[in-house]
Amino acid sequence: MRIPLWISNRHVHLSQSDCEKLFGKWYELKIFRNISQPGQFAAEELVTLVWEKGQIEKVRVVGPNRKITQVELSVWDAYNLWVTAPIKISGDIKDAWYIKIIWPVGEVYGPFAIIAQRHLHCTVKEAAEMWIKNGDVVKMHVEGIRWVIFENVAVRAKDDYALDFHIDIEEANAAGVKPGDRAELTK
Amino acid sequence: MRIPLWISNRHVHLSQSDCEKLFGKWYELKIFRNISQPGQFAAEELVTLVWEKGQIEKVRVVGPNRKITQVELSVWDAYNLWVTAPIKISGDIKDAWYIKIIWPVGEVYGPFAIIAQRHLHCTVKEAAEMWIKNGDVVKMHVEGIRWVIFENVAVRAKDDYALDFHIDIEEANAAGVKPGDRAELTK
Repeated sequence: MRIPLWISNRHVHLSQSDCEKLFGKWYELKIFRNISQPGQFAAEELVTLVWEKGQIEKVRVVGPNRKITQVELSVWDAYNLWVTAPIKISGDIKDAWYIKIIWPVGEVYGPFAIIAQRHLHCTVKEAAEMWIKNGDVVKMHVEGIRWVIFENVAVRAKDDYALDFHIDIEEANAAGVKPGDRAELTK
Repeated sequence: MRIPLWISNRHVHLSQSDCEKLFGKWYELKIFRNISQPGQFAAEELVTLVWEKGQIEKVRVVGPNRKITQVELSVWDAYNLWVTAPIKISGDIKDAWYIKIIWPVGEVYGPFAIIAQRHLHCTVKEAAEMWIKNGDVVKMHVEGIRWVIFENVAVRAKDDYALDFHIDIEEANAAGVKPGDRAELTK
């Protein structure tokens, strides 16, 4: 099975409460474009991330809002900001590092920053067809100019997930792949 | 055999003639610190790279000067500058992309820009011990937080090489490794 790649740049998920602190009471994110997972979208809203060593501007918010605020950085971003962000599966913000998110009308500050662990999204049925299940750790082979086998890929199987292999920009660049390229499960 | 990693950030090798255009007649690079390969050093000199979409400042020159000028970028750097740099083994500048190198007293412009193909340096004897030889393409297993098997690793065996596995910052970040970590040849 050839699985489409999804390549993420740094981005931010907001809780409704943090969203309102940044953008105003009852604020609703505007859809910029839909992304791979059903119902998820890149929002029009951009924020600035700030930490000790600098800041990164124009960081995309990804909607809809979630239960918790989460900032997903690359290793390079984390290094440049001096943020000691752990590599975590999205949603697991234990040990996430403090960071400040600012926007002209407000700011929020909290343990939001992680580096996302690469993961494979699929439905429960697709997982079964690949002889894997939710929570497994697998290897994915990416056929780029710089072929790579990525180990430690977390399997996230749920019936409303779309099939994709989710990596960040540095992982994509290390493998010499681009959006639209594909990966395969390997042993 | 556990092979030390060498992680490169963007850097520039200069020909003597380009070095003199940038820094003045008979100019000699100053040693900032020695690097992994015998006789090679990070120089004190920093230059600025310029292309259509922007510039990157404070790019380290690596000495001593070589026969040809070569600018080694990451995929991310190339994207940000709009430089369509090919992935090439260092020294092979066929199809290298045009870029301008500037310094307050001069500038040079030419087909200098590549993205370095990852490679394994070793002596001919070490290669023989690993059952490989100069010019082979091998796989290296890196044990980081984000374990990766890098394929398409070029073997460069020569008696005056020091043993190291040479990758760029994005490859290191994709594997969650840092200077001092090690890699192993794998099948």
